[in-house]
Amino acid sequence: MFNVNEYFDGTVKSLGFENKAGQVTIGVMAKGEYEFGTSMVEHMTVTSGEMKVLIKGETEWKTYGEYETFRVEKDSSFKVILEDQTSYKCVYS
Amino acid sequence: MFNVNEYFDGTVKSLGFENKAGQVTIGVMAKGEYEFGTSMVEHMTVTSGEMKVLIKGETEWKTYGEYETFRVEKDSSFKVILEDQTSYKCVYS
Repeated sequence: MFNVNEYFDGTVKSLGFENKAGQVTIGVMAKGEYEFGTSMVEHMTVTSGEMKVLIKGETEWKTYGEYETFRVEKDSSFKVILEDQTSYKCVYS
Repeated sequence: MFNVNEYFDGTVKSLGFENKAGQVTIGVMAKGEYEFGTSMVEHMTVTSGEMKVLIKGETEWKTYGEYETFRVEKDSSFKVILEDQTSYKCVYS
């Protein structure tokens, strides 16, 4: 019923679903640095922990804490640095 | 690295992790009715969708929406009714 997705050798895992908000994934990332590409607009909300984020085309890393959201454009990418295990919700549009 | 847990024939799936918040799971539930027992205090936060909740010993169902939290005592239980796929975060203490 719900797909489990794994990235970066299982250091990022997510569950996909769909409801009135649209297409959604919730996931967790291990401590580390990652870069993700986008094929849709992504609304990323930290749900536990903290993320340092650099969105493609920007020059400044920004830090997002619990229930803070950043938006990444379609066909773009973003880098994250995590000091601890961190969970997120991603809503696609 | 992250355990995937399945309950009720896969209609509830969760991912477990740990950070400064403590022991945490994030998960998603299909539309339906469920009852969960607790072996620790659980702080349940809806992260997408809506949950109707009846905590053991209470008489009134309450509805929790996005980023709203309810607390369930240790060695207790709670019932949820979901009209749509709904995600949550659970922090144990």
